[in-house]
Amino acid sequence: MKKNRWYNWKEKLHDVIFESTTPEGKLFDIVLIIAIICSCLLVMAESIESLREKYGTIMSYAEWLFVASFSIEYVLRVISSKRRLKYITSFFGIIDLLATLPVLISFFVPSANYLVIVRIFRLLRLFRVLKMFRYVDEARFLLKALRASRPKVIVFLLVIFSIITIVGSLMYVIEGPENGFSSIPESMYWAIVTISTVGYGDISPQTGIGKFFASALMIVAYGILAVPTGIISYELAQSAKTATKKTCTNCGNAYSDMPAYCSKCGNKLNE
Amino acid sequence: MKKNRWYNWKEKLHDVIFESTTPEGKLFDIVLIIAIICSCLLVMAESIESLREKYGTIMSYAEWLFVASFSIEYVLRVISSKRRLKYITSFFGIIDLLATLPVLISFFVPSANYLVIVRIFRLLRLFRVLKMFRYVDEARFLLKALRASRPKVIVFLLVIFSIITIVGSLMYVIEGPENGFSSIPESMYWAIVTISTVGYGDISPQTGIGKFFASALMIVAYGILAVPTGIISYELAQSAKTATKKTCTNCGNAYSDMPAYCSKCGNKLNE
Amino acid sequence: MKKNRWYNWKEKLHDVIFESTTPEGKLFDIVLIIAIICSCLLVMAESIESLREKYGTIMSYAEWLFVASFSIEYVLRVISSKRRLKYITSFFGIIDLLATLPVLISFFVPSANYLVIVRIFRLLRLFRVLKMFRYVDEARFLLKALRASRPKVIVFLLVIFSIITIVGSLMYVIEGPENGFSSIPESMYWAIVTISTVGYGDISPQTGIGKFFASALMIVAYGILAVPTGIISYELAQSAKTATKKTCTNCGNAYSDMPAYCSKCGNKLNE
Amino acid sequence: MKKNRWYNWKEKLHDVIFESTTPEGKLFDIVLIIAIICSCLLVMAESIESLREKYGTIMSYAEWLFVASFSIEYVLRVISSKRRLKYITSFFGIIDLLATLPVLISFFVPSANYLVIVRIFRLLRLFRVLKMFRYVDEARFLLKALRASRPKVIVFLLVIFSIITIVGSLMYVIEGPENGFSSIPESMYWAIVTISTVGYGDISPQTGIGKFFASALMIVAYGILAVPTGIISYELAQSAKTATKKTCTNCGNAYSDMPAYCSKCGNKLNE
Repeated sequence: MKKNRWYNWKEKLHDVIFESTTPEGKLFDIVLIIAIICSCLLVMAESIESLREKYGTIMSYAEWLFVASFSIEYVLRVISSKRRLKYITSFFGIIDLLATLPVLISFFVPSANYLVIVRIFRLLRLFRVLKMFRYVDEARFLLKALRASRPKVIVFLLVIFSIITIVGSLMYVIEGPENGFSSIPESMYWAIVTISTVGYGDISPQTGIGKFFASALMIVAYGILAVPTGIISYELAQSAKTATKKTCTNCGNAYSDMPAYCSKCGNKLNE
Repeated sequence: MKKNRWYNWKEKLHDVIFESTTPEGKLFDIVLIIAIICSCLLVMAESIESLREKYGTIMSYAEWLFVASFSIEYVLRVISSKRRLKYITSFFGIIDLLATLPVLISFFVPSANYLVIVRIFRLLRLFRVLKMFRYVDEARFLLKALRASRPKVIVFLLVIFSIITIVGSLMYVIEGPENGFSSIPESMYWAIVTISTVGYGDISPQTGIGKFFASALMIVAYGILAVPTGIISYELAQSAKTATKKTCTNCGNAYSDMPAYCSKCGNKLNE
Repeated sequence: MKKNRWYNWKEKLHDVIFESTTPEGKLFDIVLIIAIICSCLLVMAESIESLREKYGTIMSYAEWLFVASFSIEYVLRVISSKRRLKYITSFFGIIDLLATLPVLISFFVPSANYLVIVRIFRLLRLFRVLKMFRYVDEARFLLKALRASRPKVIVFLLVIFSIITIVGSLMYVIEGPENGFSSIPESMYWAIVTISTVGYGDISPQTGIGKFFASALMIVAYGILAVPTGIISYELAQSAKTATKKTCTNCGNAYSDMPAYCSKCGNKLNE
Repeated sequence: MKKNRWYNWKEKLHDVIFESTTPEGKLFDIVLIIAIICSCLLVMAESIESLREKYGTIMSYAEWLFVASFSIEYVLRVISSKRRLKYITSFFGIIDLLATLPVLISFFVPSANYLVIVRIFRLLRLFRVLKMFRYVDEARFLLKALRASRPKVIVFLLVIFSIITIVGSLMYVIEGPENGFSSIPESMYWAIVTISTVGYGDISPQTGIGKFFASALMIVAYGILAVPTGIISYELAQSAKTATKKTCTNCGNAYSDMPAYCSKCGNKLNE
C-alpha cells in the first residue's frame, strides 16, 4: 500500500513538472519561465561592470538562489521522469543540467559562470506550455525544408570553404603581413568577413592588386549569397507541395490542402 | 431647419476633408500633402546647425504655423468624422494627433519636437488621393503574404534571439572587456551587427579563438539570412495562388485566374 | 538622279553605322567598341595622379582625338538616321551625345570631363553586334519581371523611406550631434547605411539606448531585405509561366514551351 | 609474357590510385586525404610567424616530404592513367600538378610556396571516395541550375559593371582625392564594396551630396541584390521540374515525377 502511495506521489510530481494540463502543472511552468527569464537577465546585468560594482553581493546571492532552485528542479525531474536515461540524454535534459553546471565550474575557471546563459534554451519549452501547436507545426515545416536542403548546403559549404582557403592564401601572398594580412588563418578570417558581406573593415586590402581581387571576391559573393536563399525557397515550396495536411479515414487518400469532403469517396473529413 | 443646415455644413466639411471626389476635396488633399512634405523638410532643416543658426527664428515661426494648421485640421477632422471614436483610435487618427503633439511636449522635454517627423506617415494618404488603387492592391497582397508568414517568422526570430544571446555570452567570456566586448548586452549588440551582416567594425574580435567563433557565426548567418527570404518568396507564391481575382456573380464561385466563363454554372464573367 | 545618288550615299552610311549585317557595318561596330573601351580606360587612367603626371599631355591629346571621333560619329548618325528626332531622343541617342559633351563643358567646370565615362553605356550595343539575341531575350525576360514587380517595389520603397525618416529622427534625438548624428539628414544616411546592411562604421550608435534601437532596426532590416528578393523570385516565376514562346500560325494557340507540333491542330510549328 | 606482367602491374597501380573499390585503393585514398589535410594545415601554420620561428626547420622538412610524395604520386598517376593526355589536361590533373609546383617556383619567387594551398581542391575527390553519390547528384543539380542561369547572370553582371563605372566616376568628381576617392579605379572599388553591401568603411563619402548619391546607390543595391537570388531560386525550381527521375525501360519515355506505370505504354516502372 505504501509503495502505491509513493508511486502516486511520483506520478503527481511527474504531472506537475512535465505536463501542463493540470492547474498545478500550468502554474509550475509559468513560474519556471519567469525564473528562467529573470535568471538570464541577471546574468546579463552581472556582466555590466557599473551594475556589478553597486549590486554585486545581492546579484551573487540571487544567482546562487537560482542555481539552487534549478538544481533541485533538475533532481526532481530525474526522479519523476518515467524514462530516466532518455530524459538525461535528451536535448532538454542536457540543457537543464548545463543551466546550473557552469556556476559550479566557475570555482575553478573564473568567468565560466556567464555560460549559464545557455539556460535561455530552456525557454523553448514555451512552445509546449502555451500550446502553440501551430507554431510548433511551422517550426517542423521549416526544419523539414532545412533538413531536405542539407545535402545541397553541405556541397555549398565545401565549395565556400575551398574558395575561402584559396582566396585567403592568395591575399596573404599579395598583401602580406605589413597590410594586416598577418597569416593565412587571418586572411581566411578576412575572406569570411568579406564573402558574408559583414565587412568590419578591421582588415582591408591596401594595394591595388589586392583591391582588385577583393572586388572580384565580392562580385562572386553576390552570386554565392543567392545560392542558399534559392535552395531554401525551393525546398520550402517542395515540402509544402508534399506536406500531408489531411488524410481520409475511409479510403486513405492524402490531401495537401484542407477540403471538407474527400474528393474520392465523399467521406466527411475531420478538422 | 437650422439643424439641417448645420448637418449639411458638417457633411460638406466631411466631404472636403475625408473624401477626394469633389474638386474642393481634391484641392484640400493636394494642399495637405504639400504642407506635410514642407513641414517634414522643415524639421530636417531645423536639425542642421548651420541652417538653424542662420534662419532659426523664421523656422520656428514656420513650425508654429504648421502646428497650428495641423491642430485646426485635427479638430475639424474629429468634428466632421461620422464615427468619431473610430477615427480617433484609427492608425491615421493617432498619426494626425502625433503630428502636432511632440511640439507641445517640447516645452518640457527639449529636442522632442524633432519627433513631429512622424507626420511623414500622413503621406500614406497619398495612395488614396492619387486613386492608386492598384498600388493599394499590391500593398494588400504584400501584407497578406507577410501576415501569412508571421508564425514562421516568429519561430525564426525566437531561434535568432537564442543564438544572439548564446553567441553574445560566449564572445564576452572569450574576448572580455579588454577587447571591446565590455558586457553581455554589448556582446549581443555585436552579435546582431554581425548576424545581420551590417558589420560596423566598432567592435570586432581580436583574439584568434574569438575570430574563429565570429567566422562560424558569419557562415551560420549566411544560411539564416536565407530563411526569411525563402519564407517570403514562398508565401508570395502561396497568396498569389489563393488570390481571388474573379468571383462568379451567379453562383459565387471564386477564381484565382481570369476565366471567361464560370466553370461551375457557365455564367459569363465580367472583366 | 543626283538626289538618288545622294540618297544611296545616305542609305549606305545608315547601313554601315546602324546595321551590322554588311562586312563594313560589322567592321565599323568592332572598331567602335574597341574605341569605346579604350576611351573609358583612358578616362580611368587620367584620374590616377601618378599616371597623369607622367603621361598627362599624351592622354589629353588622345582624349581630344576620341572626342573628335565620337562627335563626327554623332553627326553622321544624326544625318544618316531615318527618323532623326526619334534617334536624337532615344536612349542611345542621348548617350551618344553625352559621350562627348562633358569634355566641352569641362572648359567651364573643371573635372566635369570625367563624366564622359557615361560612354560606357554605349557598350550595350554589344548585344546587338554580337547577335546575342539569346542574351537580349534574357534581358527582356528580366526587364519584364522587374516591370511587373514595379508597383510592389514602389509600395516597398515608400515604406522603407518612411522607416528611414522616422528612425533617422529618433536616432538624432537619442544620440545627438555629440555621437556623430549631427543632423536628421545625417541620421537618415546612417539609417540607410544600416538598413541596406552596408555598415561603413563611420557613424555608429554610442549610447546603450541607441544601440538597442539600432539592433531593432537591423532585425527589421533582415525581414525587409527579404521582401524585394521574394517579389523578384515570384515575378520571375510568373513571367516565365505567362511567357509566350511560340504561337501556332494555323489556330493561333500560344505555347509557353517549345513544342514541335501544335497540340490543338497538329500544325507544324516554326523554330 | 613480360609485357603482360608489366601491363598487369600498371593495371594494378591504376586500380589502387584511381579506383577505390579494392581495399588497397580505399586505403590509398584515405591516406591521401589525410596527407592533403595535413599539408594544407602545415601551409597555414607556416604562415603564422610565431610558429614559423619556433618550428621553422621541422616545418620546411615536412613540407619537402609532402612535395616529394605528391610529386611521386603525380608521376605514378600519369604513368598508370589509361588516357594520359586526358588526365593531364583534366581539372584534377592540373590541380595535382599545382599541388607541388609552387614550392619549386618559390626558389625564384619567395612566398609563392603558399600557393600550394591550391591542393585543397584535391579534397573534392572526397565525394568519389566516400561514395557520396547523393551529394554528387545534388552538386550536379546545383550546377545545372547555375549553368541555366548563366545568360541572365551575364546580362546582370554587364549592368552591374556599367553602374559601378558610372557611380565610381560620379563619386570621384563629387568627393575627389581629398576625401579618399583618389582615382576612378579607387572609386569603383568603393562602389563594389558598397553595392555588395560589404562596406569596410576604409573609404566612405564625406560631403553631403556624396552621401546622398551613396544612399541612392544603397537603395538600388537593395533591389539589385534581389535579382541573382530570384534568378537562382527560379532556375532551381525549373531544373527540378525538368529533372528526369524515372525512365521507362520499354518506350524510353522520361518522367519528372515518380509514377508507378508508364503513361505511354503501360509498362510497370522500377523503383
